[in-house]
Amino acid sequence: KFTVDWDVESASKGGYDYFMLKEIHEQPTAIRETLLRRLDENGKIKLDDIKLTKEDLEKITKVYIVACGTAYNAGLIGRYAIEKFAQIPVEPDIASEFRYREPFIDQNTLLIVISQSGETLDTLAAIREAKRKGARILSITNVVGSSVARESDDVFYTWAGPEVAVASTKAYTTQITALYMIALDLALTKGTITEEFYFDTINKMKELPEKVERILENAEDIKKIAEDIKDSQSAFYLGRGLDYQTAMEGALKLKEISYIHTEAFAAGELKHGTIALIEDGTPVIAIAGQESLYEKMLSNIQEVKARGAYVISIAKESKKEIEAQSDRVIYVPDVDDILAPVLTAVPTQLIAYYTSLIKGNDVDKPRNLAKSVTVE
Amino acid sequence: KFTVDWDVESASKGGYDYFMLKEIHEQPTAIRETLLRRLDENGKIKLDDIKLTKEDLEKITKVYIVACGTAYNAGLIGRYAIEKFAQIPVEPDIASEFRYREPFIDQNTLLIVISQSGETLDTLAAIREAKRKGARILSITNVVGSSVARESDDVFYTWAGPEVAVASTKAYTTQITALYMIALDLALTKGTITEEFYFDTINKMKELPEKVERILENAEDIKKIAEDIKDSQSAFYLGRGLDYQTAMEGALKLKEISYIHTEAFAAGELKHGTIALIEDGTPVIAIAGQESLYEKMLSNIQEVKARGAYVISIAKESKKEIEAQSDRVIYVPDVDDILAPVLTAVPTQLIAYYTSLIKGNDVDKPRNLAKSVTVE
Repeated sequence: KFTVDWDVESASKGGYDYFMLKEIHEQPTAIRETLLRRLDENGKIKLDDIKLTKEDLEKITKVYIVACGTAYNAGLIGRYAIEKFAQIPVEPDIASEFRYREPFIDQNTLLIVISQSGETLDTLAAIREAKRKGARILSITNVVGSSVARESDDVFYTWAGPEVAVASTKAYTTQITALYMIALDLALTKGTITEEFYFDTINKMKELPEKVERILENAEDIKKIAEDIKDSQSAFYLGRGLDYQTAMEGALKLKEISYIHTEAFAAGELKHGTIALIEDGTPVIAIAGQESLYEKMLSNIQEVKARGAYVISIAKESKKEIEAQSDRVIYVPDVDDILAPVLTAVPTQLIAYYTSLIKGNDVDKPRNLAKSVTVE
Repeated sequence: KFTVDWDVESASKGGYDYFMLKEIHEQPTAIRETLLRRLDENGKIKLDDIKLTKEDLEKITKVYIVACGTAYNAGLIGRYAIEKFAQIPVEPDIASEFRYREPFIDQNTLLIVISQSGETLDTLAAIREAKRKGARILSITNVVGSSVARESDDVFYTWAGPEVAVASTKAYTTQITALYMIALDLALTKGTITEEFYFDTINKMKELPEKVERILENAEDIKKIAEDIKDSQSAFYLGRGLDYQTAMEGALKLKEISYIHTEAFAAGELKHGTIALIEDGTPVIAIAGQESLYEKMLSNIQEVKARGAYVISIAKESKKEIEAQSDRVIYVPDVDDILAPVLTAVPTQLIAYYTSLIKGNDVDKPRNLAKSVTVE
């Protein structure tokens, strides 16, 4: 008797062992779709269903970005982009904190919320609270017709496709893509960037899918790193500026599926306490994706190396001198500082994936966690 | 031959085994001094050397609080107080991040910096950067004539007295005291609080030293908790709102001197990833000092308890029902939510102290750390 060794679930994994790995590999397509579906025939971003006019924008005195978990980490990247491009101060907040904070909200407030599922309860509560006080709500979500989408004034749908693994990957990078586009659109409308910079940045964004592809070609190299860190009790992610936000997401990813207690630090903050935890062999993953902060990062790497840390650096491929300070280096293609988070995130996803896999965990369904958090 | 078993150092410890314990016990005096030396004969806060008039305040459109390490954590409490009392939005930032962020600074910006030593290099650099752009600088420091004090427009000196232990304790609680006073003064000047509320809050602050004293009377009880957690690799602090900020400081304290990897979470954020780390016996220290968030905290405690966590709760003494959810409870005297951080911090200091002591660490001089960080 002949039996076929597959079921519906494994078939839908498209040959990958886990949904998470499949979804990591779907990122080039997901980012491309999220970007291209919002470009018109002139290559301009069309947020036509997002009806923020120049007049609307001039009235906005306060922008909040509110989300939970990975979506919050994406929001931190978005904050930088909006502040840098559009020169609008943005306050990021965790939804479960924002709800109870008595935030400064009125009719001149723009609330950007991010939720993959569009059903995150704390995020929904934040929307309702802000709406009651007159704020305008722009949501970024992956699920058409979700509660978040329905309750928002404007919606930017990411085109990530269904995300099944609890640990979010393609939702994260497409949320960042969406935030860059919103930032560029706001900035052009406000006149804080030139058309030249606008189109130049869009062109650089168009190269992101292929650059992610190049990182993924060497995905299996990261298995070695996973082998090296799998028995650690603790690990640290370090970064400065945008790299610090990527570090936060990298740490969340590694801890939620490998169960290694991983914490992210602003690299300059380490010497104010946490460096006491660095022992011989403690894994420290240093993200050095910001050209402007590169020298500072190198000294922070030296600090932890001097205390015996096992240093894994994530750097742009033209930055070879980092090898002298690191035990391992994972390179990503060169890219503008502001866009680097889309690339540097990918190795952090792979480190988490392979570490979880090698430890024999259920990668897609980590203990204690649900995909969409619809409880408080 | 008769020898006396003491040296200058141990003598200056005043009978305590370590400076840290001495400094923890000095907090009632330090808080009292910081408060009373700034009250005039009518019981009003006198910030006469801090020359912010109503006109000055009306011009201020942006307030940053910038610091490193423990001082940053104090700043997070100050942020709440200033936002709540004076209705001025405040943006907190880590000095080593702020320096490189291109923050929104002009002549209408007030920069509040906090540094115990007044020599923290990143904080000094932040002052210089902000000054160059025209911001007004108000500093909170413990050292008269320090660089931070000299380079600021206005200075609020804490009266903590010399702090020798690397792990900051009395500097932290006096910095918070200073921030409450600044918040009350700004609020009264702006007219966002009534005189009645102002004096009522000052009167409640006057009771803080004695309430801290009462917590310290039972300090030795915390040895039992230290025994229970000393062999853990990981620990977590949880809190919501102001308790989350206290959790951050508690986690920093525990990790820097006990070398247990301790991380703080906004309690509502736990289910977005970190709860995967909770195993049977994982110590979770839950701060439940906010009346308004108490029920929410109870459910978060139940969540971690259900995953096997060993729960140590820090709660107000009238909140006995928390015992049913907790393995241990440390009570602090009842107090207004906004002032609770001064009290709830004390048990976190004692947990860190006794855990470090029982582990045989050099409590006052943790590995890899310096008291005052004068390098980048």
